Amino acid sequence: MIAPLAVAMGDSAGVGPEITAKAWKARELHSLAPFFAVGDPRAIRQVWDGPIVQITDPEEATSAFARALPILTVGDGGEVVPGTPNDSTARAALQSLEIAVGLASAGAAGGVVTGPVSKAQLYGIGFTYPGQTEFVAERCGISGENAVMMLAGPTLRVVPLTVHLAIADVPGALSIELILAKARVTARGVLRNFGIERPRLAFAGLNPHAGEGGAIGREEIDIILPAIELLRAEGIDAIGPFAADAMFHARARAGYDVALCPYHDQALIPIKTLHFDEGVNITLGLPIVRTAPDHGTAFGIAGKDQAHPGAMIAAIRMAASAAQRRADTAL
Amino acid sequence: MIAPLAVAMGDSAGVGPEITAKAWKARELHSLAPFFAVGDPRAIRQVWDGPIVQITDPEEATSAFARALPILTVGDGGEVVPGTPNDSTARAALQSLEIAVGLASAGAAGGVVTGPVSKAQLYGIGFTYPGQTEFVAERCGISGENAVMMLAGPTLRVVPLTVHLAIADVPGALSIELILAKARVTARGVLRNFGIERPRLAFAGLNPHAGEGGAIGREEIDIILPAIELLRAEGIDAIGPFAADAMFHARARAGYDVALCPYHDQALIPIKTLHFDEGVNITLGLPIVRTAPDHGTAFGIAGKDQAHPGAMIAAIRMAASAAQRRADTAL
Repeated sequence: MIAPLAVAMGDSAGVGPEITAKAWKARELHSLAPFFAVGDPRAIRQVWDGPIVQITDPEEATSAFARALPILTVGDGGEVVPGTPNDSTARAALQSLEIAVGLASAGAAGGVVTGPVSKAQLYGIGFTYPGQTEFVAERCGISGENAVMMLAGPTLRVVPLTVHLAIADVPGALSIELILAKARVTARGVLRNFGIERPRLAFAGLNPHAGEGGAIGREEIDIILPAIELLRAEGIDAIGPFAADAMFHARARAGYDVALCPYHDQALIPIKTLHFDEGVNITLGLPIVRTAPDHGTAFGIAGKDQAHPGAMIAAIRMAASAAQRRADTAL
Repeated sequence: MIAPLAVAMGDSAGVGPEITAKAWKARELHSLAPFFAVGDPRAIRQVWDGPIVQITDPEEATSAFARALPILTVGDGGEVVPGTPNDSTARAALQSLEIAVGLASAGAAGGVVTGPVSKAQLYGIGFTYPGQTEFVAERCGISGENAVMMLAGPTLRVVPLTVHLAIADVPGALSIELILAKARVTARGVLRNFGIERPRLAFAGLNPHAGEGGAIGREEIDIILPAIELLRAEGIDAIGPFAADAMFHARARAGYDVALCPYHDQALIPIKTLHFDEGVNITLGLPIVRTAPDHGTAFGIAGKDQAHPGAMIAAIRMAASAAQRRADTAL
């Protein structure tokens, strides 16, 4: 059996505490593996009146999980008001992330599920990473560039090859080297975390109609196709580039295991259109398992009992499944 | 009652003839208004053995429609082999388009539905327009820039503000003037063709997360938001810019009538993900009604009885509905 999962609750003033509590409440319905929250217990208390138990060692979570939500306490004791983030709620987010990753790296936690944070708030307390993914990667001794963000839902997995770049900067950022690096991590990560042998990697073109043979841009011819050919020579089942708009209906999705898209919206639009309430962000290329619900802090609805725990539940299930698979296969 | 619709069958070697025949066959099931095909009867004969009747005047279609598919013949008599386009099948496409638009402009046809063409084939016979939309616009005395392509499905309508541009050229093509022009045509076109008073126009940002306050590109601040404010001052219900990836799930779609997106894939990915087999291309800003099934010639399956007529049927229904609305309201 895997060690309990660590759920870093994210910003104490966001919906993280609420969806963590709701996920625990639904533990039997969704057959959730034991997990413990890492964060400020007062953040939970403000939005939920169910049973909690404070723990000091992840091991305690395994037995406590059936009757109460186990919590490993962090936080500086500053004010917590749902919907109103401050430096203190941001610090709780950062501390819980750091502790959760540390416990997973040490093997005391089976994996890490990270709740939503506010990047603006984190930057305010000195955080310098583009996002949680890069922070987790560095704590694991991996360069942020070698960690790959994948979004996964019940019928689609996508990898954006570039992430938070202005559209004007995307064509210049795309290179054969970038595609090779991301695709290699993706192919191995999909095997390791999902058990798919020789996954089919389908590449979207950068331009409309995948450039229409060079008539609408040349990046497909100059960059994407040569990268695909190199990947195939390595034994990776890479196909494309395809017109992005024709890749995401049900019949098309049946033709591949992961869609790799040159930029953010190409990948995120279809996954959120199809799986808005159940999308999971999983980081590939790490020595530990890390997943996250694919949504933000939603400060606007925090504390109003309106947050949907579907994506958090899906993230916990995916983390447990990936951790179990890694334990079974030693991959 | 509106005059019968003219269905230009597109390239004789594509799936146009087959889906036109299948639409006629399903006329009762879908309560289709009378229409007639414009094209080469031999192209129909090669893929369908149902009843056809050759007509010389659109008026004949109204009474003939119940018992046979009415066809107004065009074509130069050249070879027609499904799946194998040639100059002759492209000429039939162009002639059928020209005749259908002429009949609609003269009021003899209630509107035009255009089947799929191959741009490469059309360019080979001297066609110089970016696509059928611009050709139809010019034949109607409208500049191609003032015609707006909208894609519409049962739960989503989208307008790409730029169309067949390489991604690298999109930021430079986006301007306040462009947005104003497209949005005005869209607002009026949605009223005129769909009967929606003061439609809600939701704008997508160009960049991921709609630029995140300028951190990921400035086009939202410098171009899109000022355009939205000018539109609102004109009384157009424009909102946004929104993060494109969060605009297309069911709850988000309930908040607007049309999504206007800076570039092709932002608009086309969600509509094709949701409505691949029933997407309709409707041109706004024209004096005539013009719709088209939102798919290509599919030469690969032409003549194999595999083509799905859903989008053609939806295009015919939408054209009939828009024509009836225009007739009723004189808009």
